[in-house]
Amino acid sequence: MQVWDADAAVLDRFAADMAVLCDTLLAEGLLQDRDGTLARIRTCPTLEEAVAGVSFVQENGPEKIEVKTDLFARLDAATPPGAIIASSTSAIVASRFTEGLEHRHRCLVGHPVNPPHLVPVVELCPAPWTATETMDRAEALYRDIGQVPVRMTRERDGFVLNRLQGALLGEALRLLGEGVVSVEGLDATIKDGLGLRWALMGPIETIDLNAPGGIIDYATRYGGFYARLAEEPAGPEVFSVENAEKIAATWTQDRSPETIRARQDRRDARLAALRRHLASEQS
Amino acid sequence: MQVWDADAAVLDRFAADMAVLCDTLLAEGLLQDRDGTLARIRTCPTLEEAVAGVSFVQENGPEKIEVKTDLFARLDAATPPGAIIASSTSAIVASRFTEGLEHRHRCLVGHPVNPPHLVPVVELCPAPWTATETMDRAEALYRDIGQVPVRMTRERDGFVLNRLQGALLGEALRLLGEGVVSVEGLDATIKDGLGLRWALMGPIETIDLNAPGGIIDYATRYGGFYARLAEEPAGPEVFSVENAEKIAATWTQDRSPETIRARQDRRDARLAALRRHLASEQS
Repeated sequence: MQVWDADAAVLDRFAADMAVLCDTLLAEGLLQDRDGTLARIRTCPTLEEAVAGVSFVQENGPEKIEVKTDLFARLDAATPPGAIIASSTSAIVASRFTEGLEHRHRCLVGHPVNPPHLVPVVELCPAPWTATETMDRAEALYRDIGQVPVRMTRERDGFVLNRLQGALLGEALRLLGEGVVSVEGLDATIKDGLGLRWALMGPIETIDLNAPGGIIDYATRYGGFYARLAEEPAGPEVFSVENAEKIAATWTQDRSPETIRARQDRRDARLAALRRHLASEQS
Repeated sequence: MQVWDADAAVLDRFAADMAVLCDTLLAEGLLQDRDGTLARIRTCPTLEEAVAGVSFVQENGPEKIEVKTDLFARLDAATPPGAIIASSTSAIVASRFTEGLEHRHRCLVGHPVNPPHLVPVVELCPAPWTATETMDRAEALYRDIGQVPVRMTRERDGFVLNRLQGALLGEALRLLGEGVVSVEGLDATIKDGLGLRWALMGPIETIDLNAPGGIIDYATRYGGFYARLAEEPAGPEVFSVENAEKIAATWTQDRSPETIRARQDRRDARLAALRRHLASEQS
């Protein structure tokens, strides 16, 4: 694996950072061959050297359209014929930064979820000109390395995961902004409620099991109820910084960078334990 | 505990049904005193006998406004002074069936989630006339028996859980109806993605950890993106039976009652194992 970053300081400390990460993975039982893994990673001083001879590129630049456009132009020129070029973007569809490229049929979005070694989903979103073969090969590669590729048939802003998250967050932020429930109460509704089912099966399998006759029976019984709620969806205003400030004022947390980092570490340790639990029951 | 049902056949087999349930709980390590539990349950031939001398009533009748209205009128007349009357309704706010009652200040919705011995959340939703003391006592009681009460400050159709579920389902059913992703792919986005986090913490704690500065930083960075998606929410039509039929046609499952029941049993066994895992890591 060959790595390049525009910031030389990132490359300088990359081997040390990777060693720390591999130690964590080893301790969590998520990595067998620490030294072999580290030996396979090589940093390169230029983008062009990093993509020389490769068959797959994962681009992880900043979420700015002008940065993506520049990076993809360089990748389009430098990658070997046949190499796939996947962007990790979470919020920009590939058609916006690949349209004019010679090899645009080899470009797609491959959106992983943080932290990718603990959350296996990768969303695959084609541009209108992405080749089926590109999608097939990307899907096979992500599956081979133990991720769970989710293939979209066409572009949608926000892909699938953030569209689903955004819909739920919109309703959550509305209820909180209106003071209908506390943050702790709202979070418990998911953590000690729906989230328990959703960690085991998705929302569609969930409703397929929540009516004696499956999903069509569910729509027959509850469709009218949900349609009534859908008449008055949360609006864009619930995502304002003002609403976030109002909600944060009701929910005291230490939000210093060190504490957020410590809470993230704790989350990741719990995610690793959850993945081990789920893996053990499936075997 | 005193139990009554309008259907005498339900009461006749109630002791046997409870014994089977208690055996399951015992096998799953979720119940200590099987015989003691069963000995505390008594069936009664009339509603009036069932509520004699009690301090708390949990009503679980059919989800029909006229049935709730009739049941609550009888409960209002028959329960001892001071007894709380909670309805398990998932879709009817209490103001619609308690307004004219003498003891309406003792009535509320206490909405559990199926299966309640594995999913601990209970939503507490007051009618405009529900007394604060009623809410306090109901909250304490649910907490005492090991559930997680979530207290609302006022009525909202759908309460909290189904409003959140409805928002996510609306987007999911739209994407599926449009053929943007398969059912398996959509479910994986939650099961192998967001659902892993949401089983550990709710959606608000999740976003509080998804930006270096917490929830306000998150709104600053991503609020505009989500607001853009919220400009075009899924409409009521995605909940139609026609859309469910279209989606079910792309996703073959055996939906005979026996198979649905077997899949539900498997879900419940996995839920029990997940609860044990989560409980063990918190100790």
